[in-house]
Order: sequence, then C-alpha cells, then structure tokens
Amino acid sequence: MSEKAYKMEGFKGSSVSAGLKKGGEPDLALIYSERDVVASGVFTTNRVQAAPVILSRENIKNGRVKAIVVNSGNANACTGEVGLQNARATAGLVAENLGIEPDEVLVASTGVIGAQLDMNLFSKAIPNLANSLSPDGIPRVAEAMMTTDSFSKISLFEGNADGGPFQILGIAKGAGMIMPDMATMLCFVLTDLRLDAQNLDRAVSAAVEASFNRISVDGDTSTNDMVIVLAHGRTEAEALSPGDFEEFNNGLTRVMTELATMIVRDGEGATKVVHVKVKGAATSEDALTAARTVANSSLVKTAFYGQDPNWGRIMAALGRAGILMREEKVSIWLDGIKIVEEGLGTGKGAEKEAADKMTNKEFVLTIDRQQGEHEERIITCDLTHEYITINADYR
Amino acid sequence: MSEKAYKMEGFKGSSVSAGLKKGGEPDLALIYSERDVVASGVFTTNRVQAAPVILSRENIKNGRVKAIVVNSGNANACTGEVGLQNARATAGLVAENLGIEPDEVLVASTGVIGAQLDMNLFSKAIPNLANSLSPDGIPRVAEAMMTTDSFSKISLFEGNADGGPFQILGIAKGAGMIMPDMATMLCFVLTDLRLDAQNLDRAVSAAVEASFNRISVDGDTSTNDMVIVLAHGRTEAEALSPGDFEEFNNGLTRVMTELATMIVRDGEGATKVVHVKVKGAATSEDALTAARTVANSSLVKTAFYGQDPNWGRIMAALGRAGILMREEKVSIWLDGIKIVEEGLGTGKGAEKEAADKMTNKEFVLTIDRQQGEHEERIITCDLTHEYITINADYR
Repeated sequence: MSEKAYKMEGFKGSSVSAGLKKGGEPDLALIYSERDVVASGVFTTNRVQAAPVILSRENIKNGRVKAIVVNSGNANACTGEVGLQNARATAGLVAENLGIEPDEVLVASTGVIGAQLDMNLFSKAIPNLANSLSPDGIPRVAEAMMTTDSFSKISLFEGNADGGPFQILGIAKGAGMIMPDMATMLCFVLTDLRLDAQNLDRAVSAAVEASFNRISVDGDTSTNDMVIVLAHGRTEAEALSPGDFEEFNNGLTRVMTELATMIVRDGEGATKVVHVKVKGAATSEDALTAARTVANSSLVKTAFYGQDPNWGRIMAALGRAGILMREEKVSIWLDGIKIVEEGLGTGKGAEKEAADKMTNKEFVLTIDRQQGEHEERIITCDLTHEYITINADYR
Repeated sequence: MSEKAYKMEGFKGSSVSAGLKKGGEPDLALIYSERDVVASGVFTTNRVQAAPVILSRENIKNGRVKAIVVNSGNANACTGEVGLQNARATAGLVAENLGIEPDEVLVASTGVIGAQLDMNLFSKAIPNLANSLSPDGIPRVAEAMMTTDSFSKISLFEGNADGGPFQILGIAKGAGMIMPDMATMLCFVLTDLRLDAQNLDRAVSAAVEASFNRISVDGDTSTNDMVIVLAHGRTEAEALSPGDFEEFNNGLTRVMTELATMIVRDGEGATKVVHVKVKGAATSEDALTAARTVANSSLVKTAFYGQDPNWGRIMAALGRAGILMREEKVSIWLDGIKIVEEGLGTGKGAEKEAADKMTNKEFVLTIDRQQGEHEERIITCDLTHEYITINADYR
C-alpha cells in the first residue's frame, strides 16, 4: 500500500525509537491536530484500568484534545500511583514540546503489564517526536504502536457530506484482544468532517458496537483498550443533516469494521477468519449471545483449525449458551453447504463438501434457529498451535 | 493398582467389545444390583441433551433402578426421535436379559455426536454382557467407558456408620469436560450404606457441587454428562444419625473429588494440575466467579504451560470477571512465593522463584482479595500444544 494516500489536512503524525522495545523498533508516536477538534473515546470495560486509560478518560472530558501520545513496549498497567504520575508526566512533556496544555493530551500505552516506565527514555525522546511531526506521519504511528501485530492496520473512507468531500482515516493495533499484556486493542480515527460532540459520541458508540464489539479471539479483554475519534469541530455550525450524518455513520462503521477484521486476521497464530452468523433468533440479544458463545468455544475454534465441520460441538456450545435452545429447529451451513437440518446431520457427503470450504482462509458459519427474525454476527478466528506457542513462550 | 479391592457386596459389573469402537476395545458395560437400591442422579445442564440423558432422567424418577448400561464410541446425541427409540431399545434389551423391567435400567453413552447407534451391535452383545456379570467386574466398566481418557478412574472410601463398616466405590470417565463429543464426564458411585432417597439426594448434590462443579478444563460442557449414585436402600429403616450422615457425606465428597481431580490430571494434553484458590472475597459467589474466570482464561492457562508467573494476565482476568475488583488490594502467591503485593509486582527475584515452582506437575495459585472472609477454589489444568492437536485432528 502507498502511504501517500493516508494523510489528512490538519493532522500530523510522527514516531521515534525511544528504547522501550528491545529490538530498537519505533515505539513512541504522536498524533497532533493543528485545529480544534471534538474528541470521543471508548475505553476498556476491564475493571483493572491502566494508568493511561485513567488519565485519558479524565482529559477527554475537558472537551479539548490536541494530541495523542502512544507508546508500545510497556502497558503502564498495574503500576499504582507511580504509574499514574508517569502517565501525567508523559502528557506534560508532550504539552511542553508542543506549546499546549497537559490536559489537551491523551495518553495510550501497550506492552508488558506491571513494570514502571523509564521516564528518562521519554524525556529524551519526546522533543524529537514533536519536532518530526509531519502530514505524512500517520502511518508511522500505526507502525510504532505494533506489538505482536504482524502488519500495521490502516483504513480510509472517502465520502461526501456537509457540502463537500470528507475523509475518515483510522489506524489500529491488536492481534486479537487475546493477550492483556501485549495485544491491547488501540484505535485512533481522524476525520475532517465537522461534527458536534453529541453526534460524534452517538456515531462512535454505534460504530464500536458494530465493529470492535463484534469480534472475538479468546474472550480475554485488555486493561489498556482504547478507541479515540478526533473530528474537526463545529462548535458554532449547525448540525449535519440526517442524510449527511448517516453518511458519516456508515463511513465510520466501515473503517472500524475493516480495522476490526484486520485484528482478527492478525489474531495470534490465527490461520482462518470465520464469520459466525446466527439468524432466526427471537431477539437480537439472544442472537448475539449464541454467536458469541459459539465464536468463543475453544472446541469449535480448534475444529475450525482442523478444517472439521464438527457440528456436534456447535450444537453443544449453543446448548450451554443460556439461550432458548430448540435443538430440533436448528439448521447449520458452512458457506453454502447445509450440514445440519432441523437438529440432525445431513450426512457424510455434505460434511465432506463443508470440510473443503474450510480449507479457505475465510468462511461463513450460518446458524438458523427458526425462532424469530433477529440476526447477529461475530467475526472470530481459529485456535491453533501457534497461539499456544506465542502465549506460552512470551516474556 | 489391584482390582481385587474394587468390589462391593451386592453389585456386579461386566464389559464386552460390541464393535462400537473401531479398535475393538471393550465399549459396552453393565452395572447390576442384586438388591433394591436407592438412586440419585445429576445430569448435564446443557440444553442439548443426549437421548440417554433424557431416558435416564425419566427412569430415575421411578425410584426403582437395578442396572446401568453404558457405551462408549457413540454419544447418541443430536439424534432426534430415532436416538430416543434406540436408547429405549437398549434399556429393553438389558431388562429382557436380566429379567427386570425396562424402566429399571439407566442408560449412559459417550462418543461421537450426531450418528445413530447400530442396534444390531447391541442385540448381539447384550446377552453376553448380562451373562458375564461378576462381583469383580466394576473396574472393567471403568475401562469400557474410556474414550480419550489415558487411564481408568476408580476411587474407594471405607468408613464406619450405621453400626458397622461401609464402602463408597466410584468410577468415572472424562478427560476434562473439554470435548462435548468425546470427553463427556460420566461417574457412577456405589455404596453399601443404607440410605433413604431424600438424604441421598442431599448428599449427592453437595458432593457434586464440591467436586465436579469445582473443576474446569476449558469451559465447554457436554450433552451427555451424568453422575449416578446407587445406595442400598433403607425404605423402612430409620434415617442415619447426623454423625453417620456426615461420615457418608465426607466419604462421598472425597471419592468424587478424587475422581474429579483425576479427570483434570487426564485433561486432554494437560501437563499440569493447578489449584486456583481465591480468598478474602466478600461472598462465596464472588470468590467462585473470580476463581472460575482465572481458571478458564486461555491466557492464564497458556502461561501455566509456559511456566511463566505472568500475574498481569491474572489481574486482567480478575478485572473482567464482573466482581468487585480492587486492584490495590490484591496479593498473589504461587505455592508459597508472593508475586504480587497489594496490586504491585514484588520483583524479578520472586518471579524467578515462582517460575521454579511452576516446573512442578501440581501447584497452588492463591489470590487474596482482602475484601472479606470467603474462599473458593477451582482445580484446572494448563492449555497446551497437545490440546490443540487432539481437538483439531479428532474425527
């Protein structure tokens, strides 16, 4: 991909190697907005919250954000009062070098849990970081925040609203929300569309729900997860028309869904992306619970890896999902191949065909419950030998 | 172990190779009681219930049980009306050959989901099965019901109550409740102590809660799980004294805990047994939820495998458990080594010592929350390469 396309008027980015990562790769990055922006954030639901999450939650409430500083190599989580002081000091250093206020800086971290940051590394690196800001720098931010990621994740949407073209540029890191100490999910999205704070919050909540909350690697959540969206503000302008707002909504959901799918594809050790679709449910909640239980089952996920259309495991997962389960109404397809019809297997021939579909890198598992009209889907990956290797041998 | 000790006056067992397992190993077994017994059963909570579970649930309600027939190689689950007819026909064949009523027979199955039983195999094998009943046959039942188990599981308790000695003899199969189609947990317990139905039910519920409901391999539950306890009945006798009843309770809990621990030790691919103990919780429920979430986390379990005292993963699991989490109050030990004190790591030296403890095949992870007086524990195992191999390559 060409990095040239990934930039946006008014936003700059930069990265440096501060020495947090042992290999010397870039590990500290900055996003800076020259104009006033409206910011909206969604933070981890984990009750153990890393220091940068506590600080950024606080600062975003002020309604004035000018910069996001992000480091990899150290999560600054489970670090107590010292950790919080270090997060504040980081914001202070960035503010000082940019000539802005400390509470205009958001801080994000990802890496090892339980170790204190070496603030000397930050003091030395942040002046260079501020000096090297460039309109072409956003993709470098995406690279510097990688940990176990095998590729950097960028998505761009171009649309028309408010009387002209606009862009939504998103970057993310994460290899599956599967390692609280390494695979934190971070996502930063920039847009040059002018939005008021209330509409931006609405759009961000909806887009996160439809994207990052619809992926699953192994059910673990991180202490550091964070999604931040910065939009050029329209403090005194009129609100967008409903049609224009919908255009923005769709674009934001598309960018986040693309980034979320990249995270699943890059899931630690993953070899397959599987769309688990549950339809015919009595309620949306019921459909989502069913899809999530199937998508999180270690047994189902190892069967994906083994390219085995083992529908008994899918039925058993549905049976323990706590949903209204009627075995005799369930039909299951793998891509177009029906392997279960009303609770009974359709035979070895169909299973053979389904197994062939499962050799693909991406496929759809469809479960029809025939109890209503609601449908939900979760994007997941397989559980592999490589996952065990990465997670057992890390540190 | 000597099989000689594993028998009980009044109970007989037998097994045959009916041809359900491809390798020709014994796969059909029978337990028969010459005397009247009182029976108590606990069945899977999975809403997808195999045909033998439906039938045995029905028959145990009659209060007259004389025999249990169990097969491996086929779970008779997700088999619809035909499956239920086959389970009934199995009970009928056993009854016919023993000269008892069909509703005096309980049926249990374990093996592949979704395939119909070949009733010809049962018709041919059951006469031999009935003819070969022997007082020494109980250990042969334990062997015939093995699937992915690597050893057969038997436990004996000897105590004194009701004016004399009594025994509790338990057998089980299961390699971790981790494969709904193979690792079904079955447990049959026999006792020669005379008990009334109500007290037996109370004792069985309590013992199952303290044993089988305190182990965890990967959170999946089977469609075929079943625990059955047969006791020589005391329909007209007086109830046991509270002291004698407690003696029985303790013995039953001990037998079931021993069998449950054997199941964890035999967990598919497991190399370590870990006792996850949560103390200092405000309520028992809170302690149990915390222990279960830590014990089920794929990340924590791969860290056990990697012999890595990665306490950040433990903190993150506690943080998403939905409990009242106060990070700054949590201390964590691995066996006697304190690796976290009030939310902060105790340093590399302690981690090194803890890593040494983790090279053992069995260790205790203790989490003190300092919020109350309640304590619970869950026995779990590690998540390994071998688990993936077994579960991806099966079928």
